[in-house]
Amino acid sequence: MKRTAVIMAGGSGERFWPMSRRTQPKQLLYLTSKDQTMIEETIARIAPIVAPEDIFIVTGEVLLPVMRSMPLGIPPENIIAEPLKRNTAPCIALAAALLAERYAEQGIPATDISMAVLAADHFISAPDLFCRTADAAFSAAEATGSLVTLGITPTRPETGYGYIETAGETRAELEAEPVVSFQEKPSADRAQEFLDAGKFLWNSGMFFWRVDAVINGIAQHLPEIGSSIDALRGALHGHTRDLPEGAPAGTREIFATMPDISIDYGLMERADNVAVVRAIFPWDDVGSWDALPRVFNADEHGNIALGESIIIDSNNCVVVNSNADQSTTVAVVGLDNIVVVTTPHGVLVCPANRAQDVKKVVQALQSKPGGEKFL
Amino acid sequence: MKRTAVIMAGGSGERFWPMSRRTQPKQLLYLTSKDQTMIEETIARIAPIVAPEDIFIVTGEVLLPVMRSMPLGIPPENIIAEPLKRNTAPCIALAAALLAERYAEQGIPATDISMAVLAADHFISAPDLFCRTADAAFSAAEATGSLVTLGITPTRPETGYGYIETAGETRAELEAEPVVSFQEKPSADRAQEFLDAGKFLWNSGMFFWRVDAVINGIAQHLPEIGSSIDALRGALHGHTRDLPEGAPAGTREIFATMPDISIDYGLMERADNVAVVRAIFPWDDVGSWDALPRVFNADEHGNIALGESIIIDSNNCVVVNSNADQSTTVAVVGLDNIVVVTTPHGVLVCPANRAQDVKKVVQALQSKPGGEKFL
Repeated sequence: MKRTAVIMAGGSGERFWPMSRRTQPKQLLYLTSKDQTMIEETIARIAPIVAPEDIFIVTGEVLLPVMRSMPLGIPPENIIAEPLKRNTAPCIALAAALLAERYAEQGIPATDISMAVLAADHFISAPDLFCRTADAAFSAAEATGSLVTLGITPTRPETGYGYIETAGETRAELEAEPVVSFQEKPSADRAQEFLDAGKFLWNSGMFFWRVDAVINGIAQHLPEIGSSIDALRGALHGHTRDLPEGAPAGTREIFATMPDISIDYGLMERADNVAVVRAIFPWDDVGSWDALPRVFNADEHGNIALGESIIIDSNNCVVVNSNADQSTTVAVVGLDNIVVVTTPHGVLVCPANRAQDVKKVVQALQSKPGGEKFL
Repeated sequence: MKRTAVIMAGGSGERFWPMSRRTQPKQLLYLTSKDQTMIEETIARIAPIVAPEDIFIVTGEVLLPVMRSMPLGIPPENIIAEPLKRNTAPCIALAAALLAERYAEQGIPATDISMAVLAADHFISAPDLFCRTADAAFSAAEATGSLVTLGITPTRPETGYGYIETAGETRAELEAEPVVSFQEKPSADRAQEFLDAGKFLWNSGMFFWRVDAVINGIAQHLPEIGSSIDALRGALHGHTRDLPEGAPAGTREIFATMPDISIDYGLMERADNVAVVRAIFPWDDVGSWDALPRVFNADEHGNIALGESIIIDSNNCVVVNSNADQSTTVAVVGLDNIVVVTTPHGVLVCPANRAQDVKKVVQALQSKPGGEKFL
């Protein structure tokens, strides 16, 4: 079985403004590590069980040249662009078509290719535990042809994630188990119920399946996309190692006809051969600035400080100074639960529980004359 | 009568970090006007009633070259440095000695020179009302030889200022009246009593007197300083238009013997020929960042924004972006009563009621290895 990994790296990273920019979204930030960008961490994490030439990245056309110029250690022809910004289902269809064609050139049929779908911008400590989890998920997907998702044992009543309901049976560690239902992002009350019930897992957005299984699943449950997979394969046939400046030739027209739908909603919630493996690694999707205290060890006052700073009489603050040359300091005095981020082009200050609203800043800058230059 | 003005501009401006720096303290900031620094505003305000060649600045040795290189419109030899950082009494003694000697060269005796002592960093709108007030104070000081201070009608129970007690009698506008007592900075309760009583004024730190009157007053009430005035005059004799790189030659040794005392405490509280003129202009000493909403017109949410910024869902905030090239924006979301100031070398974030504590930031930077470069 040929194991491959597809890293979805199309994010535009507005939630980490001002550090993230259109040409430097979250996955290209040194956010959770001083030594590696998040996408480099993602590649390093899967590399023990997937060879570099079998690791792929799907990104947007703006980021394609940026990513290909980075020393990521994978072949540049393994980095491709979506022709249009779409939700995950079209992206995964494109990736599955690429893999089917690429490995067909080597005589490997889709039934013999397994595929991990990974996010480029999640925080996962304990890479060894990640590899053990991924190996188990690969094995389950390869053996049964099922669509395997990774579930995360919840640690708080989070309303920002979807949930996976299991039967709640006692299982061996890393044993795949059936999914009873998928649950959309819940209300606060419902999230607490999920947490208390003990049989709900966070939907991590990471998947493992055989290429034939995902193509068949899309054909059955998402025919508006499934009907285009042959066309995508046709466009890619003989061109799986092209290095176009944008998306693969011929894919734009095909993509334009596809519905903008997530793989969770379009496939996972509809299919009956879905299984979940409970991840054994600590995980955070690092969705906004207020996630940093979960990722880093806060000091005794609950503060996280990255970069040159002075923190006085303050508690539970996130202070990020990304002026790389350390020519600027950030001083906070007397603050509680405040996020302060400074970069050469922008300063953000907001309460931690408003960190999601940095999107409003990005929107305001988009509509303000001259505001684009700060994005 | 020769009217002169002495602007005391020795402040080190720590309270406006990061905008203020050692070589650019508050008086050299474009803080209350986009077009003029505070010292330029001070000069422009008194210029209608004192000729440029009769306006003097006393500053510190660090700032002397900076100020002399500025196009302030007064002769560079009218800008002198104190040899040591001292409270106001030695500074005023030096200024009085300089004026006595400078105008003696023109045959004008000290009895024929009146002297306004002004701060370089106060906010005064309505310059016409300032001139009317200053003219009245000059006239009172010139006619009677009394020591005239400007009192400000209080608008809030401020605990940060000293107060002047008057008899509370009804007077004609701008009529000088006797001072009953000087009161140190009061407690909050006492400040409220002062406000309610209606006969207390804020001590503005601006004075008007004849040069002979202040020299005689210092001789009588501050003999430790008065005994040195002749020595200061001796050092300055024939050298009142020198342009030394530091303090006037020979003054350092004299200054070193003087007590570090304020003119309020050393002279005004002790003398019996003290009068006060109630200022008719709006005034603020702009003591810290949280003063800006008193100086500028806040928007309907109570916010003050200077420079490029995005303010969302916030109230009563002070947002100052002094990156002159507008390459940086400052975005605040969901904040109340917060001060945010950004400059190329520093970002400050604190609650408005902690704005005084920026001193703690300066102290922390002074003691932190490498911190000096942010000051």
